Amino acid sequence: LDKVMKGRQPTDLMLRCTVLDAEGNVKTISGQFRKTDLSAEHRINPRDLRKIDSRVPNIVPTILVRREAILVNILHVRALVKADMVLLFDTFGSTDSRLHSVFLYHLEHNLKSKTTGLPYEFRAIESILLSVISALEAEMVFIRNLVGGLLAELEEDIDHDRLKRLLHYSRRLAAFQSRAQLVEQALEEVLEQDDDLNAMYLTDKKEGRPRDGDDHEDLEFLLESFSKQVEEIVSEVGNIDNNVESTQEIVELILDANRNALLGLDLQVSIATFGVGTGAFIASLLGMNLTNHFEEHVWAFYGMTGISTTIVIIMSFMGLRKLAKMRRVGLSSTFVNRNGNGKPKRWLPLPLRGRQHGGWWS
Amino acid sequence: LDKVMKGRQPTDLMLRCTVLDAEGNVKTISGQFRKTDLSAEHRINPRDLRKIDSRVPNIVPTILVRREAILVNILHVRALVKADMVLLFDTFGSTDSRLHSVFLYHLEHNLKSKTTGLPYEFRAIESILLSVISALEAEMVFIRNLVGGLLAELEEDIDHDRLKRLLHYSRRLAAFQSRAQLVEQALEEVLEQDDDLNAMYLTDKKEGRPRDGDDHEDLEFLLESFSKQVEEIVSEVGNIDNNVESTQEIVELILDANRNALLGLDLQVSIATFGVGTGAFIASLLGMNLTNHFEEHVWAFYGMTGISTTIVIIMSFMGLRKLAKMRRVGLSSTFVNRNGNGKPKRWLPLPLRGRQHGGWWS
Amino acid sequence: LDKVMKGRQPTDLMLRCTVLDAEGNVKTISGQFRKTDLSAEHRINPRDLRKIDSRVPNIVPTILVRREAILVNILHVRALVKADMVLLFDTFGSTDSRLHSVFLYHLEHNLKSKTTGLPYEFRAIESILLSVISALEAEMVFIRNLVGGLLAELEEDIDHDRLKRLLHYSRRLAAFQSRAQLVEQALEEVLEQDDDLNAMYLTDKKEGRPRDGDDHEDLEFLLESFSKQVEEIVSEVGNIDNNVESTQEIVELILDANRNALLGLDLQVSIATFGVGTGAFIASLLGMNLTNHFEEHVWAFYGMTGISTTIVIIMSFMGLRKLAKMRRVGLSSTFVNRNGNGKPKRWLPLPLRGRQHGGWWS
Amino acid sequence: LDKVMKGRQPTDLMLRCTVLDAEGNVKTISGQFRKTDLSAEHRINPRDLRKIDSRVPNIVPTILVRREAILVNILHVRALVKADMVLLFDTFGSTDSRLHSVFLYHLEHNLKSKTTGLPYEFRAIESILLSVISALEAEMVFIRNLVGGLLAELEEDIDHDRLKRLLHYSRRLAAFQSRAQLVEQALEEVLEQDDDLNAMYLTDKKEGRPRDGDDHEDLEFLLESFSKQVEEIVSEVGNIDNNVESTQEIVELILDANRNALLGLDLQVSIATFGVGTGAFIASLLGMNLTNHFEEHVWAFYGMTGISTTIVIIMSFMGLRKLAKMRRVGLSSTFVNRNGNGKPKRWLPLPLRGRQHGGWWS
Amino acid sequence: LDKVMKGRQPTDLMLRCTVLDAEGNVKTISGQFRKTDLSAEHRINPRDLRKIDSRVPNIVPTILVRREAILVNILHVRALVKADMVLLFDTFGSTDSRLHSVFLYHLEHNLKSKTTGLPYEFRAIESILLSVISALEAEMVFIRNLVGGLLAELEEDIDHDRLKRLLHYSRRLAAFQSRAQLVEQALEEVLEQDDDLNAMYLTDKKEGRPRDGDDHEDLEFLLESFSKQVEEIVSEVGNIDNNVESTQEIVELILDANRNALLGLDLQVSIATFGVGTGAFIASLLGMNLTNHFEEHVWAFYGMTGISTTIVIIMSFMGLRKLAKMRRVGLSSTFVNRNGNGKPKRWLPLPLRGRQHGGWWS
Repeated sequence: LDKVMKGRQPTDLMLRCTVLDAEGNVKTISGQFRKTDLSAEHRINPRDLRKIDSRVPNIVPTILVRREAILVNILHVRALVKADMVLLFDTFGSTDSRLHSVFLYHLEHNLKSKTTGLPYEFRAIESILLSVISALEAEMVFIRNLVGGLLAELEEDIDHDRLKRLLHYSRRLAAFQSRAQLVEQALEEVLEQDDDLNAMYLTDKKEGRPRDGDDHEDLEFLLESFSKQVEEIVSEVGNIDNNVESTQEIVELILDANRNALLGLDLQVSIATFGVGTGAFIASLLGMNLTNHFEEHVWAFYGMTGISTTIVIIMSFMGLRKLAKMRRVGLSSTFVNRNGNGKPKRWLPLPLRGRQHGGWWS
Repeated sequence: LDKVMKGRQPTDLMLRCTVLDAEGNVKTISGQFRKTDLSAEHRINPRDLRKIDSRVPNIVPTILVRREAILVNILHVRALVKADMVLLFDTFGSTDSRLHSVFLYHLEHNLKSKTTGLPYEFRAIESILLSVISALEAEMVFIRNLVGGLLAELEEDIDHDRLKRLLHYSRRLAAFQSRAQLVEQALEEVLEQDDDLNAMYLTDKKEGRPRDGDDHEDLEFLLESFSKQVEEIVSEVGNIDNNVESTQEIVELILDANRNALLGLDLQVSIATFGVGTGAFIASLLGMNLTNHFEEHVWAFYGMTGISTTIVIIMSFMGLRKLAKMRRVGLSSTFVNRNGNGKPKRWLPLPLRGRQHGGWWS
Repeated sequence: LDKVMKGRQPTDLMLRCTVLDAEGNVKTISGQFRKTDLSAEHRINPRDLRKIDSRVPNIVPTILVRREAILVNILHVRALVKADMVLLFDTFGSTDSRLHSVFLYHLEHNLKSKTTGLPYEFRAIESILLSVISALEAEMVFIRNLVGGLLAELEEDIDHDRLKRLLHYSRRLAAFQSRAQLVEQALEEVLEQDDDLNAMYLTDKKEGRPRDGDDHEDLEFLLESFSKQVEEIVSEVGNIDNNVESTQEIVELILDANRNALLGLDLQVSIATFGVGTGAFIASLLGMNLTNHFEEHVWAFYGMTGISTTIVIIMSFMGLRKLAKMRRVGLSSTFVNRNGNGKPKRWLPLPLRGRQHGGWWS
Repeated sequence: LDKVMKGRQPTDLMLRCTVLDAEGNVKTISGQFRKTDLSAEHRINPRDLRKIDSRVPNIVPTILVRREAILVNILHVRALVKADMVLLFDTFGSTDSRLHSVFLYHLEHNLKSKTTGLPYEFRAIESILLSVISALEAEMVFIRNLVGGLLAELEEDIDHDRLKRLLHYSRRLAAFQSRAQLVEQALEEVLEQDDDLNAMYLTDKKEGRPRDGDDHEDLEFLLESFSKQVEEIVSEVGNIDNNVESTQEIVELILDANRNALLGLDLQVSIATFGVGTGAFIASLLGMNLTNHFEEHVWAFYGMTGISTTIVIIMSFMGLRKLAKMRRVGLSSTFVNRNGNGKPKRWLPLPLRGRQHGGWWS
Repeated sequence: LDKVMKGRQPTDLMLRCTVLDAEGNVKTISGQFRKTDLSAEHRINPRDLRKIDSRVPNIVPTILVRREAILVNILHVRALVKADMVLLFDTFGSTDSRLHSVFLYHLEHNLKSKTTGLPYEFRAIESILLSVISALEAEMVFIRNLVGGLLAELEEDIDHDRLKRLLHYSRRLAAFQSRAQLVEQALEEVLEQDDDLNAMYLTDKKEGRPRDGDDHEDLEFLLESFSKQVEEIVSEVGNIDNNVESTQEIVELILDANRNALLGLDLQVSIATFGVGTGAFIASLLGMNLTNHFEEHVWAFYGMTGISTTIVIIMSFMGLRKLAKMRRVGLSSTFVNRNGNGKPKRWLPLPLRGRQHGGWWS
């Protein structure tokens, strides 16, 4: 048991991270730090670092505001933002180095430029959120193109292969949708809590001017702006999802209608086969090795051929007429005609006329 | 990388917009302004203008209240309203010039007339919202007619083509529904925040009388009135959507029932074919070039013909009777009869009689 | 353009309404009033009267509380209630004159009787809400009977016609449900706002004793009582809707199961046909005009007849056995037996036994 | 009209009720009281008594707190609880006398015992809620057994009859679920309102010590405890409902898969029939009364028999091979293989690599 | 009746529990305690202990905060935590002794170590929640593997057996999902109530320093951390559930498409059979024992054979062409072509052009 427990011992856990200093310069690239040292140095509970620890699966994004630092953990970004330092944790398995380097470049640039008037920590958060939004947007566009292309292909023909791809895209879409919604939630959770918003003014706190009340317009506008953009993405994904869903529903109806059409054709063939079979039955009766007394009749052959052919045609015709009547499937019915109006979508006035009204008071 | 980044440089971005002055006269038509100048002049964060920037896709409508201006971005209208000026941004690709010119005409007219007692900025917002509502209403009527017409056609016959149109209308309906709901949300978001409502009294603010508390009845009534109208539209669209959905469900059931009916007819034909086939089998046995010892019998032919025809009829009759029994599919069952009441919709009293009651206290 | 705009000019709009005075007597019946006069006289914004204007479609019910009046617009009732006067607006197209006259009779009676201790405006509102509830209840009963009757008919047989009626009732039910829910919402919206509740004490306001705080028990109890009744109706409609929905689902399953049964019968027939066909094939082989060397054999005919009949029976029997095996479709499977318990509904204990437990601390 | 109104006159309405005095003794059994007397004596608005009036249908449970009394109306219990008296109203049509007598016995017992320290009115409410929970629990167990039994039967075979029972149980389950949820809601509504909780201390109020603020732990714990139990039942019912729903969905899939299997068998038979038919066609050609010049050939018969049998076998074999290929329906497709990973469930990294990155700032 | 009531008498109920003292040492293992003694000793209402009583089914997890103790009842853990003592109740039927012993080991260890700075009761809760999360995580992984494996198998072929397993897994998934959500709810319920959070500082309370206001960061962070982990699990389960659902939907579509394909093949066979049947009919006509006057014609046999074979081929070809046309089922239709754009997914501009615009003011 002891051995098992050591397997999860977090004390000797090393985290790789890139450090940017107060000037926005990269101080360390993928340096190794001990988890315990990190939590001690930045006054963070080791529990909070567990989410950063990249070996744990990680779907729900979080923005944790602690005494001296903000812990951001959204999609591919796992960062610890302080008033004069940013730590970017490496996420194992994140092969998307291009995304990461663009993010790092922008972060550096943004931390150096001091024209926007925002404090250091907000500029860091701005860069992080921009990278997140950018990633979401890219995936949204990617999925929209995938799905759009498939739906366009379905215009042509509905086949097995396309339906399978629909499944794969539909799963992917659902996963992305839930991811985007969780990002939106995380942002809104922070926006709703005045305490957290105040606590995020790390520079002010460090300089001994802790914020109070609801005077945090800069930060609010910043976060709101990103929140709106995520909302936009979520809304777009919702539209795509709606499209996929209504396509699925209608595809089912179309396959059903097509099946009925095929069945109709099948019936036509069956009826014709039955007709021909009846003819063959009659002919084979006369083919029996029994005396039918017409053997030598001159016109008997032509007569029987005519008769049986006629029977074939009559049988088939009757069957096909019955079928034709059965194949028409409209929604209108005798019921509607009985009501005589045929306008089922109209506002239906309250049907009170024929009732016994009781008094109104009680 | 540098080049790529310049591609999005917003500094040299020009926005085309129409300007109306304090008297409601059009000062500039589709004039070009630099984004940076605009944000500086009207004391707006460049970030806020990004939504106005028409190249970015734009689904979620927003009403942003800033220090000296209100930024409205709903459907086709992208406007910046100040206490003495209105800027209407041109939206690229908005070919609907008629809608736009009517809107402009009304806005001018409304800004000039001072009889309503509303301040300048509210008259501008009133015109904007009226144009929005009008556009929503128009599209709603358009879609309602499309869908209504299609549903009426489905009354006659359910075919492939109509189902495809149902898909297209259903997608369009869903998109419109989400659009209308987002407009409703945007209005309600503003209505819920007293701060924003107060901050929208731009004229009062400009004249040094900032509003406080919850004394903003004029504006509230104005926005509420439009909010109710959007609610009306959303509710109507919801009804259309319900109609489409229940139609889809029942169409599926009707296609299913029709398929069963077709299958029933198919079975009738199959059974008859089987009967005829049995007859033909018997006849062909006698057609074999083998001595059946009845070759010369005088009545054998008539006898065999009679016998095989009888077999055909018996076979078919038995099959058809079995089929007839199987085709009746009601919901009632022996189970219901066993219960003896057949009233499954009644309030079911608590079935406690046969139980062992434990005590009531614990 | 000018002409078009005049088309909607509301200034010359006449509204027809019935007026009741402070004593509850009908002063004017369907008198014509100018909209502008009305809004001036009762100090209401013309915008508010637009909802009353009966030409506009009107789904969302509203209770607007204004300075000197309460504007009620629910279903068939469009009224303006003041401290000493009630105006009932005629709704064009409301052919339900009986409902209206009962309502008017009760309103008069209720306004005259002063025993309940409620002020004038509340007695008016009580009568209005009673009429609304009564109308909702009547329609609910009507729809419940329609749907109940149809579901009872479906017990017997599921056919095309009944499914079409199900569609019509289902649409109607959905429309009614949304209507009832909107009435419930409107009532709850008023109940939630203390301001509005206070402002509804028109008599007190008129006599210079405006209410404040949350001392409005009379009104609250009054509205709550109606709100509960609407809730009851909404809940009942929800139950009906659930019934319809689960019926639809099961009808689909039953149609599916029935189709499988039909297909099974079809297969039986097909197999028998195949058997007979095989026999006919063998017989026709011997019917060829070729020497089979048994032509004169005495027992050959009986032998071949016996053999081919046996083949027919064997073929059919094998086919039918294979079919019988295939037609049994239970949910139980080898998989369940493999687990050996067959109790999939039981509480499943946490499957931790076979795992490697890591330590508990982090 | 007058007559009609009198039909609902509540003034002369008699209510039957059982009265328990302050000592917990039954004073009157099913005594008749006038509604007006009751409302006057207990200072209750007649409107409130309407819910008690057992002739009105009654789905939504309510707990109304009035000046001197608490009106409880949940499921089978309709009671008026005062500080020193409990009135139990008889509900017409409640045949479940056993449930009622156990309830009465427990109520008497509980009112007499004063050891729990709870005031009189709370002991009454405790007994009432215990009876309600007990009834809910009993019905839940009953339905769970019904549904569980049916689902177990469906394991064996899915037939018409069982699907019909599924419908009946599913309706019943839905009705029960809505009932349990409404009870939960009613309890929570009371728990959420501090005013109501305070007002329920009838004994304290009577003795001139009205409660204030949020010092009502006893009552809160009491109600919370029952609320938790109802929650437990609602949650259990939700699980059953989920079970039924997923069973329905999978049953549909299984019926679909079974139909495909049947169709496959049908095709096998059809193909074999076609093969046999082709053979019979060839044989019948040679059976024509025309000179085929092989009439006297010694081996011709065996040759033709061999050839046509071979054709039958080849035809059938080709058809069956084509069918076998078509019957395999997996979800995997060339598409997945093209991607080469086949792991569609994995976390999909953001597909940014191939994109043109724009800059990060705006 | 008396006897029945005694059956539930809780007074003589013995509970088995393990006790840990203030030092974290196990004092008693599975000792028996009387319920009444327990409730008296720890000042808990007997009602609260009912949830602990393991014989009652127990789905909804609860954390009850009482005067001197915290009652935790989540999944397999039923504990009473005090400032210097922890009671772990045995749950009958909990065979998972390994999970329990690991939990006990960790709890002991955690109670002994005083380095974390957390008070005794919080360390107990930490261990409890860790065990709960661990159990949830284990089951989640287990189910994810089950479902993932099944979905992978469905890639290959959709058969009866796999669909049945899908049902079992789907039920299990739903049950687990509801369980995880209820745990999440229970945690959030506690987190939302400042009173409860304060009351959980048992050590401080015992030492006479009851907490007030919202100064409970330690506990909040502790609970929040676990709440986030449960959220993660719930979110993961939601994804699995989405996967299962969209798989079900697409499987249905694929089965439908496959059925259409089978039907198409069936039709091909039917058409060919019909063709062959027609040929056989013609041949059998000539096989009749009637004089057809070509008996002795030298080429007649070859002529008729040729003619009938040609008819067979023509018949089949026509049928198959008709079928081929019918089998193509795309979503595109003449309707889309009529509109000429074929881009149904694009933003649809407001269709106002062709309308009559009324004026904008009202």
